[in-house]
Amino acid sequence: MSLAMFLLAAMLHGAAPGTTARSAPAASNAAAQAQVRAVLDRQVEDWNRGDVEAFMRGYWNSPQTEFVSSSGIVRGWQTVLERYRKNYPDRATMGRLTFSELEITPLGPGAALAVGHWRLQRATGDVGGVFTLVFRKFPGGWRIVNDHTSQAR
Amino acid sequence: MSLAMFLLAAMLHGAAPGTTARSAPAASNAAAQAQVRAVLDRQVEDWNRGDVEAFMRGYWNSPQTEFVSSSGIVRGWQTVLERYRKNYPDRATMGRLTFSELEITPLGPGAALAVGHWRLQRATGDVGGVFTLVFRKFPGGWRIVNDHTSQAR
Repeated sequence: MSLAMFLLAAMLHGAAPGTTARSAPAASNAAAQAQVRAVLDRQVEDWNRGDVEAFMRGYWNSPQTEFVSSSGIVRGWQTVLERYRKNYPDRATMGRLTFSELEITPLGPGAALAVGHWRLQRATGDVGGVFTLVFRKFPGGWRIVNDHTSQAR
Repeated sequence: MSLAMFLLAAMLHGAAPGTTARSAPAASNAAAQAQVRAVLDRQVEDWNRGDVEAFMRGYWNSPQTEFVSSSGIVRGWQTVLERYRKNYPDRATMGRLTFSELEITPLGPGAALAVGHWRLQRATGDVGGVFTLVFRKFPGGWRIVNDHTSQAR
């Protein structure tokens, strides 16, 4: 086979750049799901240690990061941190966090959606609800770019 | 130039499959934003005509489509339609819908996030709040796969 024929055959059969991406979606989806789940597991550990700043490492450190709730839209990593500090000023208010019925759906190679239930067990009274988190993949790993959290009424 | 050299040069310079995708992200982002906005504009028109079933065309017609709120997670296009019919049984309850401060962020080639404020003007009392919508691109166009809507308290 001449070089021209080889290259032509390779292009026609998809051995050109792009092939691996086509053959690996299932594996990369499973990897994305595991990586996103690891970020959330880590957040739960950090919260339950009372370390809100470590918990915030799960969020994209950007002025564009968004936290959405019935109170409206809060923008910026720092402002989201301040909101958590204000609403959960001490360990008693923070309580013990658990996530459940977690469902992680890849949205292409660089984004994923996580939907689930959250619960804070507290001596002063439990609270809980649902959340949708949009993750994007950055060089440093998967981070939440948008958190919409609802509290059950 | 021989065919082999031409093909080699084409591959090295990126004139192989995949090139256009690399050079067109800004244009395709703008197109995605315009297409997502068109779906939402259409939904507002359909709602304000009192046509909930037409409004539902903005959602992915799938048992996996999700509607998230303080009441929890509703799954499936049909169930989401039934929820709208139950909560908004007539034109007076549906009111006049407007979206504002709409922000559409592409999340790669096949997904996008829309964040905004919603308002229903009604004789019986206005309601409103915020929403985050995850869109995916299907052969038939962009559709909402996850809607998380909060009502301002």
